[in-house]
Amino acid sequence: ADQPAMAAARELQGRLTKPAGSLGALEELSVRLAGVAGTCPPPLPAPAAVAVFAGDHGVHAQGVSPWPQEVTAQMVANFLAGGAVVNAFARQAGAEVTVVDVGVATPPPAGDGLIEANVRRGTRDMTVEPALTRDEARAAVETGIRVAEQLLAGGAACLLTGDMGIANTTPAAALIAAFTGCTAEEATGRGTGIDDATHAHKITVVRAALDRHAPDPDDPLGVLASVGGLEHAALAGFILAAAAHRVPVIIDGVIAASGALAAAAFAPDAVAAMVAGHLSVEPGAAVALSHLGLEPLLDLGMRLGEGSGAVLALPVVAAAVRVLHEVATFDSAGVSEK
Amino acid sequence: ADQPAMAAARELQGRLTKPAGSLGALEELSVRLAGVAGTCPPPLPAPAAVAVFAGDHGVHAQGVSPWPQEVTAQMVANFLAGGAVVNAFARQAGAEVTVVDVGVATPPPAGDGLIEANVRRGTRDMTVEPALTRDEARAAVETGIRVAEQLLAGGAACLLTGDMGIANTTPAAALIAAFTGCTAEEATGRGTGIDDATHAHKITVVRAALDRHAPDPDDPLGVLASVGGLEHAALAGFILAAAAHRVPVIIDGVIAASGALAAAAFAPDAVAAMVAGHLSVEPGAAVALSHLGLEPLLDLGMRLGEGSGAVLALPVVAAAVRVLHEVATFDSAGVSEK
Repeated sequence: ADQPAMAAARELQGRLTKPAGSLGALEELSVRLAGVAGTCPPPLPAPAAVAVFAGDHGVHAQGVSPWPQEVTAQMVANFLAGGAVVNAFARQAGAEVTVVDVGVATPPPAGDGLIEANVRRGTRDMTVEPALTRDEARAAVETGIRVAEQLLAGGAACLLTGDMGIANTTPAAALIAAFTGCTAEEATGRGTGIDDATHAHKITVVRAALDRHAPDPDDPLGVLASVGGLEHAALAGFILAAAAHRVPVIIDGVIAASGALAAAAFAPDAVAAMVAGHLSVEPGAAVALSHLGLEPLLDLGMRLGEGSGAVLALPVVAAAVRVLHEVATFDSAGVSEK
Repeated sequence: ADQPAMAAARELQGRLTKPAGSLGALEELSVRLAGVAGTCPPPLPAPAAVAVFAGDHGVHAQGVSPWPQEVTAQMVANFLAGGAVVNAFARQAGAEVTVVDVGVATPPPAGDGLIEANVRRGTRDMTVEPALTRDEARAAVETGIRVAEQLLAGGAACLLTGDMGIANTTPAAALIAAFTGCTAEEATGRGTGIDDATHAHKITVVRAALDRHAPDPDDPLGVLASVGGLEHAALAGFILAAAAHRVPVIIDGVIAASGALAAAAFAPDAVAAMVAGHLSVEPGAAVALSHLGLEPLLDLGMRLGEGSGAVLALPVVAAAVRVLHEVATFDSAGVSEK
């Protein structure tokens, strides 16, 4: 992060016509975004682009989700038709939705807004073998990088993470435990809403995968390969590319947070570009964000994924930046100071 | 609130392509807004209008704020020039800003977006006499009603509360203590940012006003007259008018929350139309919202006023409603259920 730009943003915040500190977290966010961009004021986060990376999971066979695997592909079709929550939120916030098939089990129909970049038609079951080979994991990371660069080349000034994949909170929990050192219990939640018995079973599944592979947090590609998912790996690459291009990336929920941990393991400086959009109900999200040192902007009891929490936070991020562009100073407005 | 419309919204939320409950607080908000409007889906909250009620305070003479009183009028000019935070946030969220002089000490210059409705050029010092006569308090409430009706007649589908008034957290604290029964200590915060000694003094000022007038919470006009402010009284009327016209009103911070308590004392059913935009740092805000049974949408450490927290929450409110309008059902999208 660019220290002079951050200092300039702090100094400017102190001259604007408002009591110092009265915008709370938005002031610190504006300073961070100046640091990412290396300029003060930083650019407004518009146009903004959300990429929804979709993948399926071999561990679904272990009964960790009540939803049939086919829902992943059905929801891809729903995204392309504009009928999902992330589409409605994106229309509200003025963001563009791109859907990426990085690992859906059945080929989705082509459609406007779909990037076909399938690495593998679903991961393997991580409780019996590594979910991915290292080459597959690398290909998914590179897909994420490529999608980010395509959106940035198209003019995006802010990237937002989205995901879809039935059972994908299970590898997310394993990734979070692997990268942060927390237990399977601490990382594993109820996903789309499972009962106590399924939740207990899901914890044993996560623990079994961790015990089998003993992933090394200093080898992020190895972690992604052994207990990850294709969309999680792609999100890691997507986040890394945003950071490399000095563009902010709004992190959605627990899936994105697990990808963010992988990104930070690859390149710790990438955390500077990350903005935590919201606090998911999934317990692993809080563990991951705390490990990354990120404070979520929203906390609305959401647990949907798709990028919904990131898109919902976009207007808040934009408002924080807009203050630096548009608010008058005490001097310019002729307002007395205390 | 209209129970059949709320039931219809709950039922629709259960058929949309997302796990039940996965949008957390936004689902309950959408149900409440259906109840306010008496229809499902309720109208999108656009266009939205924020009214910034400005007033001055005799209690400023007690040294409760480090800011000179002239800043109120200077900030009115800043609002009219579009240079304040609420203007920047409103441009971001697509809301229109109207400024109302209901009690500024010095006549502000006329300007586009200013409603001149001055009831009195600042309140009296509530530590030595009632801040307002009952007639003055009633005139301020009626001003708020009139402004709301003017904005609704202009097409506004959502109203947002704003305020400006140097020292106005002091009467807000007194109002909150009077209506909720909490102590002066519990209701009184640091406003724009005062030191420990000034904070301790401010608490004694609030306590002295409460002791002198012993306001009766069952007589809201009497409470507003004895320890209120002109903008607080106007906000009470503004909120009451929104509720009477079945339009949602987004409550900003501690000043709006104190006005909301007065509105609820006049008409308990008005609470149904209130949406708490954010949780101000001011301790009285949490006390007031809890008394009203409202959960704030945002919690970003803000304490600016002007309507900033209400405007920041507007896109979240719009997103909650938009879900009911635009998201496909499992049936219509051909998505399998669990």
